[in-house]
Amino acid sequence: MRILITGGGGFLGSRLARAVAARGTLAGARGMERVDSIAVLDTAFPSGDDGFERITGDITDPAVLERALTGDTGAVFHLAAVVSAGAEADFDLGMRVNLDGTRALLERCRRLPHAPRFVFTSSVAAFGGRLPEVLDDRTTPNPQTSYGMQKVIGEYLTTEYSRRGFIDGRSLRLPTIVVRPGKPNLAASSFASGIVREPVHGEASICPVPEATRVWMLSPDKVVAAFIHAHDLPSEAWGVERVVNLPGISVTVREMLDTLARIAGQAVAARVRFVPDERIERIVRTWPGDFLTPRALALGFTSDQDFGAIVRQFLDEAGR
Amino acid sequence: MRILITGGGGFLGSRLARAVAARGTLAGARGMERVDSIAVLDTAFPSGDDGFERITGDITDPAVLERALTGDTGAVFHLAAVVSAGAEADFDLGMRVNLDGTRALLERCRRLPHAPRFVFTSSVAAFGGRLPEVLDDRTTPNPQTSYGMQKVIGEYLTTEYSRRGFIDGRSLRLPTIVVRPGKPNLAASSFASGIVREPVHGEASICPVPEATRVWMLSPDKVVAAFIHAHDLPSEAWGVERVVNLPGISVTVREMLDTLARIAGQAVAARVRFVPDERIERIVRTWPGDFLTPRALALGFTSDQDFGAIVRQFLDEAGR
Repeated sequence: MRILITGGGGFLGSRLARAVAARGTLAGARGMERVDSIAVLDTAFPSGDDGFERITGDITDPAVLERALTGDTGAVFHLAAVVSAGAEADFDLGMRVNLDGTRALLERCRRLPHAPRFVFTSSVAAFGGRLPEVLDDRTTPNPQTSYGMQKVIGEYLTTEYSRRGFIDGRSLRLPTIVVRPGKPNLAASSFASGIVREPVHGEASICPVPEATRVWMLSPDKVVAAFIHAHDLPSEAWGVERVVNLPGISVTVREMLDTLARIAGQAVAARVRFVPDERIERIVRTWPGDFLTPRALALGFTSDQDFGAIVRQFLDEAGR
Repeated sequence: MRILITGGGGFLGSRLARAVAARGTLAGARGMERVDSIAVLDTAFPSGDDGFERITGDITDPAVLERALTGDTGAVFHLAAVVSAGAEADFDLGMRVNLDGTRALLERCRRLPHAPRFVFTSSVAAFGGRLPEVLDDRTTPNPQTSYGMQKVIGEYLTTEYSRRGFIDGRSLRLPTIVVRPGKPNLAASSFASGIVREPVHGEASICPVPEATRVWMLSPDKVVAAFIHAHDLPSEAWGVERVVNLPGISVTVREMLDTLARIAGQAVAARVRFVPDERIERIVRTWPGDFLTPRALALGFTSDQDFGAIVRQFLDEAGR
């Protein structure tokens, strides 16, 4: 079968493409099936050829979706999105890409000869407002960002398109992914990677939120494994509940820096300075810091051991 | 100020228009304000002039919305919708009217010189799937109908447009409204009125669901009072939680018929026959039958005393 990854030019999308390629199979209608081709859709790609079928364009463009989803497409991983701070800064852009784009993609899936499996990337940004100290599977989303609202609506669309039989959908609420390589981005959560990544590379890093800030996080390895696991679970495992909070670990900024100092050295951790940024803090403050995730664990999703394991995963890949 | 009622040609919309006209005032930015004009928008109106400004057209038509929302519009009551069985029978129609229509209306509100108060009519059809016996304010919506999904998305849009300051919104999850006058309609809940209304008028009525079916209900008088109360509550009373489950009463079909027999006579109640309809039953079965609504009660919303009070309200109006 053919698979499509939207946002396939980004960090998680390209990593997922490589993981699926390495695996070579995904669960299909007739048990494990061979993945014949992997298409990656994005507005831009890094230079160089990674061997995947690259489709450059906007998911709100019908012609692009027509090319991206062919009759033999059996699985769609929908990662493309305008990130949190971006959707907050430009309401209309967020609505167009995150809501209209998701709907256009679902409509295109509906017209495929066979309902594809559809993995939707949601976020803990779905939660906000008055929250308990520790959230669980029964906590009702009440997002306090435009991005979070668009993600929740994407979940409801994914669930309904599944109930209708247009797709076989599953939505994952992702923790903050730490450590992302590359450069800081517009996501309000960008600091959570930055305060490890930049110091390890010998650069100064600014933390815009207080050290007591609690981050619910998952590593790149674990989230890519979660995408594939979510895809491969049979439809019956999801039933009428098509959304799940992924497991993660809950770590404060202070604990992150202490762990970094222990593993990479005091001098490395000392490269982080605290410079409060009210705009970022206002967004991050609405995000939940800790969860109980019994449903995800029962479905077989797993989290990282501790923050040390996350730092070591990053150091290994960075060749340090 | 001017107010707009979408779905203003329907039973609840026209009743709300008359109630607001009789009252003459609504809460505004500067305390209680005089209602200067009431516009009612619908795809069709009953014959006769009720003195309101009638706008005939579709809420997805920009030209219609342009006429419906003028610069002096201070309040919008959004009741227009394709009903449950209609949205289930025609997915695209439901998406167009219930989702795109609501969004177009919100976008038009956003362009008004002052953010209007906006009362969104949601429904207990928001709930479905695996439900507790008695739902409460913390139960997470998991609709199992297209209508319910569209209503939940409307709630999230209303909340987000409020957070952005585009409107001052409030969403009400309506119980089934009993007794509606007139003819049966496409709503899957139509029987709940029909098994009282038709027998009282000397006609036979068919009940498509088992007599143990529990209905969460509210009378026309109470829901119109709830619309106005929801509107008049100050923004601070809602805070970041812009959705509320209205109070109601939980009554089985058997209890409804027993009460009808007691008040209107055994011969009247005997006009109801049970003829199972799997299509209707499948939808109604997903709806919740009982709630605890502490938040609504704390906000000052009220329900009917008992089903006898609802029957008497109907008999009074029918002149029986």
